Amino acid sequence: MSRVLDGDAAVAAFPLGGIGTGNVSVGARGELRDWELANAPDKGASLPFTCFAIRVARDGAEAVTRVLEGRLRPPHEGDQGYDAGRLAGLPRLARSRMRGEYPLLWVDLADPLLGAEVTLTAFTPLVPLDADASGLPGAVLRYTVKNIGDAPADVTVVGSMANPVGIARRNVFNFPEFEGHPRNDWVDDGVVCGIRFGTDLGEHDLRFGSAALATTDRDVTAKPQWLSGFWQDGVQVFWDDLCEDGRLEPETVQTLDPPPRPEWFTRLRVGSLGIAARLEPGAERDFEFLLTWHFPNRARAWQGNIGLDNAGAADVVRNHYATRFADAWAVARHLAQELPSLEAATRTFHRALHGGTLPPEVVDAAAANLAVLRSTTCFRLEGGVFAAWEGSFAHAGSCEGTCTHVWNYAQSAAFLFPELERSARETEFLRETRPDGRMNFRANSVFGNAPWDFHPAVDGQLGAVVRLYREWRFGAGDAWLAELYPAARRALDFAFAEWDADGDGVLDSKQHNTYDIEFFGPNSLANSMFAAALHAGARMAERLGEDADAERFGAAARRCAERMDALLYNGEYYEQRIDDVDEHRYQYGTGCLSDQLLGQQLAHVAGLGHVLPPDHVRSAIGAVWKYNFREDLSAHHSVQRTYALGDEAGLLLCTWPRGGRPRIPFVYSDEVWTGIEYQVATHLIYEGLTDEGLRIVRAVRDRHDGRRRSPWNEAECGNHYARSLASWGPVLALSGVDYDAPSATLTIRPRLAAPVVRAVFTAGHGWGEAEVGPDGAALVLHGGSLDLARLVVEHPSLGRLEATGVALRAGQAFTAFPLPAPTTPPEEK
Amino acid sequence: MSRVLDGDAAVAAFPLGGIGTGNVSVGARGELRDWELANAPDKGASLPFTCFAIRVARDGAEAVTRVLEGRLRPPHEGDQGYDAGRLAGLPRLARSRMRGEYPLLWVDLADPLLGAEVTLTAFTPLVPLDADASGLPGAVLRYTVKNIGDAPADVTVVGSMANPVGIARRNVFNFPEFEGHPRNDWVDDGVVCGIRFGTDLGEHDLRFGSAALATTDRDVTAKPQWLSGFWQDGVQVFWDDLCEDGRLEPETVQTLDPPPRPEWFTRLRVGSLGIAARLEPGAERDFEFLLTWHFPNRARAWQGNIGLDNAGAADVVRNHYATRFADAWAVARHLAQELPSLEAATRTFHRALHGGTLPPEVVDAAAANLAVLRSTTCFRLEGGVFAAWEGSFAHAGSCEGTCTHVWNYAQSAAFLFPELERSARETEFLRETRPDGRMNFRANSVFGNAPWDFHPAVDGQLGAVVRLYREWRFGAGDAWLAELYPAARRALDFAFAEWDADGDGVLDSKQHNTYDIEFFGPNSLANSMFAAALHAGARMAERLGEDADAERFGAAARRCAERMDALLYNGEYYEQRIDDVDEHRYQYGTGCLSDQLLGQQLAHVAGLGHVLPPDHVRSAIGAVWKYNFREDLSAHHSVQRTYALGDEAGLLLCTWPRGGRPRIPFVYSDEVWTGIEYQVATHLIYEGLTDEGLRIVRAVRDRHDGRRRSPWNEAECGNHYARSLASWGPVLALSGVDYDAPSATLTIRPRLAAPVVRAVFTAGHGWGEAEVGPDGAALVLHGGSLDLARLVVEHPSLGRLEATGVALRAGQAFTAFPLPAPTTPPEEK
Repeated sequence: MSRVLDGDAAVAAFPLGGIGTGNVSVGARGELRDWELANAPDKGASLPFTCFAIRVARDGAEAVTRVLEGRLRPPHEGDQGYDAGRLAGLPRLARSRMRGEYPLLWVDLADPLLGAEVTLTAFTPLVPLDADASGLPGAVLRYTVKNIGDAPADVTVVGSMANPVGIARRNVFNFPEFEGHPRNDWVDDGVVCGIRFGTDLGEHDLRFGSAALATTDRDVTAKPQWLSGFWQDGVQVFWDDLCEDGRLEPETVQTLDPPPRPEWFTRLRVGSLGIAARLEPGAERDFEFLLTWHFPNRARAWQGNIGLDNAGAADVVRNHYATRFADAWAVARHLAQELPSLEAATRTFHRALHGGTLPPEVVDAAAANLAVLRSTTCFRLEGGVFAAWEGSFAHAGSCEGTCTHVWNYAQSAAFLFPELERSARETEFLRETRPDGRMNFRANSVFGNAPWDFHPAVDGQLGAVVRLYREWRFGAGDAWLAELYPAARRALDFAFAEWDADGDGVLDSKQHNTYDIEFFGPNSLANSMFAAALHAGARMAERLGEDADAERFGAAARRCAERMDALLYNGEYYEQRIDDVDEHRYQYGTGCLSDQLLGQQLAHVAGLGHVLPPDHVRSAIGAVWKYNFREDLSAHHSVQRTYALGDEAGLLLCTWPRGGRPRIPFVYSDEVWTGIEYQVATHLIYEGLTDEGLRIVRAVRDRHDGRRRSPWNEAECGNHYARSLASWGPVLALSGVDYDAPSATLTIRPRLAAPVVRAVFTAGHGWGEAEVGPDGAALVLHGGSLDLARLVVEHPSLGRLEATGVALRAGQAFTAFPLPAPTTPPEEK
Repeated sequence: MSRVLDGDAAVAAFPLGGIGTGNVSVGARGELRDWELANAPDKGASLPFTCFAIRVARDGAEAVTRVLEGRLRPPHEGDQGYDAGRLAGLPRLARSRMRGEYPLLWVDLADPLLGAEVTLTAFTPLVPLDADASGLPGAVLRYTVKNIGDAPADVTVVGSMANPVGIARRNVFNFPEFEGHPRNDWVDDGVVCGIRFGTDLGEHDLRFGSAALATTDRDVTAKPQWLSGFWQDGVQVFWDDLCEDGRLEPETVQTLDPPPRPEWFTRLRVGSLGIAARLEPGAERDFEFLLTWHFPNRARAWQGNIGLDNAGAADVVRNHYATRFADAWAVARHLAQELPSLEAATRTFHRALHGGTLPPEVVDAAAANLAVLRSTTCFRLEGGVFAAWEGSFAHAGSCEGTCTHVWNYAQSAAFLFPELERSARETEFLRETRPDGRMNFRANSVFGNAPWDFHPAVDGQLGAVVRLYREWRFGAGDAWLAELYPAARRALDFAFAEWDADGDGVLDSKQHNTYDIEFFGPNSLANSMFAAALHAGARMAERLGEDADAERFGAAARRCAERMDALLYNGEYYEQRIDDVDEHRYQYGTGCLSDQLLGQQLAHVAGLGHVLPPDHVRSAIGAVWKYNFREDLSAHHSVQRTYALGDEAGLLLCTWPRGGRPRIPFVYSDEVWTGIEYQVATHLIYEGLTDEGLRIVRAVRDRHDGRRRSPWNEAECGNHYARSLASWGPVLALSGVDYDAPSATLTIRPRLAAPVVRAVFTAGHGWGEAEVGPDGAALVLHGGSLDLARLVVEHPSLGRLEATGVALRAGQAFTAFPLPAPTTPPEEK
């Protein structure tokens, strides 16, 4: 699904940047916005004077110089109008059109006066199953300029950028103030040339870092450092210089301001890199820039709002990417050198994801939310340790510690970058699960700080067991499983001891959970998860030869399911069983909880199948759809946080169709969370209620249309909220591709009623496209390798197709079934 | 001119509050926004859970409960969606329509489901010539509800408000954190009843204060303090309580959260005051609330961004209003008791201003910018000392010290609240003018801190002399003049010594000015001001019997004008004369400066007439119009701050129609400032170029349409920027009402070509309406008194009409000329 947005889509922001690197985003006018390079969220942060511009001088005509952005749209408010750093008083282009299909972005820019058409192509490489290749702190910004006039034209495209290293705060004029002294240097190493943005801060300083604006083009013109000063000398001289002849002159002095210069004299250092070329009529040329950055140091503590121990905060710890690259220049050089292969893989993934036949809303949701993994919400520390917030507040992380009960919903990383989820399981089971099996649901071990002492989270802890199973089944290996399993067993046993007061196999004690309150008594959230976790435990135990465990957990799983069904199923859906729903605040009682079958949904995704009676499951998830999905929220009453409103559609967390709403129900019950919408949609599809599932996905994405909210940011408690990573679920459910590494089996059972189901898939160490058509099925592998003992296709008309011993390498296709290899549509530009 | 705005006018914010009191504003959806009660700007600040709501229960139908606001419009972005305090998940009304005619605001609210129509009338009393009556820290919020159904209905209107006292910061969830412990109390003193919001902070604490939500209505229902707690218990119980029966029950406990409560346990205290009544079909009733506040203490220092001495910052100084009222409850009681007279005067002024025949854009501009005087930009300290910033940054004052060269442009206060400008002149001449005549152009004496040591400002210092004359001429009295005159003489003499290097009577040295740089050589800004100041000095000296001064200044004025004309007039307009325009940065040379005749414009307004050759003046101001006004700025190049852009029209500060633009011209030269637009428009009208003047005023106001920018906030370096108070100039110029207190003469010479010119006027101690029609003229006095020796009407067709000995008291009209008293249009609602 292509997000085509005009320049009035004011809140659309397409993030560039890799896993754990921070971001800069591109807005609907083609502008760079939201500079979040330095290990912290900073929505709305601008870099003064930082933009691209173009000068077109057609032979015989006056040159036209413009900022390479669509025009600014109202409102134009600001306490100083637009501050000088925004360059709002320079002319821009009449039309812009953004087309975002994560991870690729295009922005078309045009103006009747320009005599040229421009398309910006922007991306950060994304290669499935390769977190390093997908974790580059940088982006490609490629301006393709076509001379649409009838005369040759001299064209200069120039990027200007303020040195972003050391920014400590912004003053009332919105100008950054720096620690250390930024400096700009011209560098040409034969591979790339451009401006290296550095600092005199020490390399262990928290704000130490570098950035680069570079190119492999050799037709360059540059002003590596503008004049600096109290007023706008620098930008005035730069702009006049550009307008005059399209060539930039280096400045010979740093400032025109005479000494003595006050202590607060600006440290802002802006530089410009241009590419200049002559274009014949009708000719087209790329003007390609590489923007990279390198902020190696994080404080060795979360310093988050939950208040985990921050003892290490005075030290720094390095980002994983900083162990791979010495500085931003090295990133730029690497990006330049590897760009052909990185771009090819990125474009192939893009085509596989966006060019298949899955419904566009599903592709849009899955693709757009991959940005979470490459947002400020997630990071990797030296050694590759994955850690994440729940989301990102505007200027700080939200809710630290890779929260188990929020990350419970996430599926994207598990199937696209499994090493990240494996790292999270290692943290949870090897470092955050105590001897008695209680798991700290927020991890502080990633920083080596003291563990968090709080209630255990019933859903997060048990979900982690299911996810351990998922990771193992996707290819983490038996040795890995064997290392983590003992803690998983403790975690399961802890559940009996902690939460099953009456020993009936159904959890019923005080149960803290993802709604940030405690449920009391038997309830569907905890027990559907318990059933799934026990099943997962039994399977893992069986594999590891822990037969006693296997039998015990298997029996407990059956008992839990049976008793939960007996206790909680009301003939239509699963409730919470509690005598007086108002004895404790924040319960749901007879309510229809959207998450009532979260454990079952996780079980489906993890390949465990039904852990509860299928007919009851189908009825219950249907009830969630029936009662909790609202086509219009104009008359909805909620005093809670608001993620959907007015004429928007959305799925409520809970409703009380049979009455019995508590006086004070749980504190998010009237809200709408995209993560839950996706898990419910996924579940509906698994149960055959595909249309209903798709309707929910469309509702989410309609709310994120670039005018209401950014398509690339689904917020909950924070931007780029982790729970939205449940959006990979519908891809899995619809394509029906299921990989079982232990048995080396790939099964394809499409749940989309379409003549051809062609979709991206991942499987352990390989990824590609799977296609099921009227006459058969086929696989093509785009990356990695795939060694299958069995390939099974549950074909809608042909029945079960099986092949054995299928081994594919990147570029190879399996065509033994009577179907040609997947067809790849012509690439969109 | 009525500003009629639908709910999508997202940036429209109509400020309530009096002179020097701070504000709360009303947005286009009828919502309360921008809570700036506590002596500092705080744009965007919200108070959680603070809104009005309505419940309508028609007999036989289900009750409908709604937040009394139009629906929220996109974008809906926020890092947590809408935080809970915004109550965005509660239903609102389908339609809202804001009509703002400062100082009165109406918001119509309607919804097909409601069965009632609601109009909010909101205002803070504004009485010309009475800064105290116009300086109440509070507002009236009157909801007029009409039952449009065919059955009787029980209607409750309820205001809820969080205690705003002691807010120190906001946490990541956008909830305020408090110093001290806020407390809410129910008070009923027989006059008003309602909720008093207090604190346990000491009365000298900077954040000490109080607020009140009260009513004179006796049909009240209230929940003075909601349940408080970690989650939303309070709002859930409140909303359910309201929905249930439209009656509120006081809570019996403070919180349901069990002990122990953490140190950071919320101190938020919300209370609700409702008015409940039964309305028969077709019946209409007012539900009137008084919202008042009282934050007595300011730090005894500017603590601004310019860096004046802040030695007194640890002490506090009281606001003037705090010397009149003990607390917010006393304000509410006063407002309730005086409301009939205060409202009558406010409405009369509103009708006189908005109901006359001046062009709507002129009235709109003049009225809307009165908000500056009642914004955070201005304040009054104990003793009535007026002080002001240049403007208001979003969260701090901008550019402290009642800057002489910015306030130079302001006319509104001088003619509506002359005691404010008199106070400013007293500060400037009695406390900020040094023995050698150098005036500190930013006043620190208002706080008793050390004077500012910086360049003197040529335009500000000399403009202050003209304004001294203006204040005296408007009625400050000879004794007052005598006290200030010696310093004015020193200030004038200083100009010869400091700025006239070659002694030729034209200023030519290094001249700091309102563009925050120094001009070198003879220039039109400084010398037009010098000529005006010398004329003013001569007149004042003459009155005081300082004959030598009078002769000296008079001769110097003539010499300055003659030599300036000879040196700077280029046959079309006045330039800067400088050999090498690039020898110093930031000059204008041959440029056409919009402010080239600022001194002449001030002279016109102050009744000094032409101080430069009239034909040259007319040509020059015509050139400003011709070259500097742009109908469309899409192709304008400016690297400076931006106040007008794209398809907007505006007047540039300077252009170079004859070439000669400096390499680096003065740093604001490509900008558009409303204050200069108004002064140029005023001048154009004085010179007979009325259409051109009006076109400029329309351009300004078209840019402030509620979608691009708020109609009630013209920003420059800060919101509510003082220079925009030049907007009273066109009222003076068009109506042609000129009051000369020393001669007790009122002259009316309309410059608007219209059959009837009817306009508000002020004159010393009285105000009213003046009307000139085809058959004659008339005056009606609405407030104060007017004792004229002579009344002169320069009638466009009848010639000069004169009357002597005209004495009017409020409510009286002068009808000796053959015209009935001014007709007052029926009041708009």
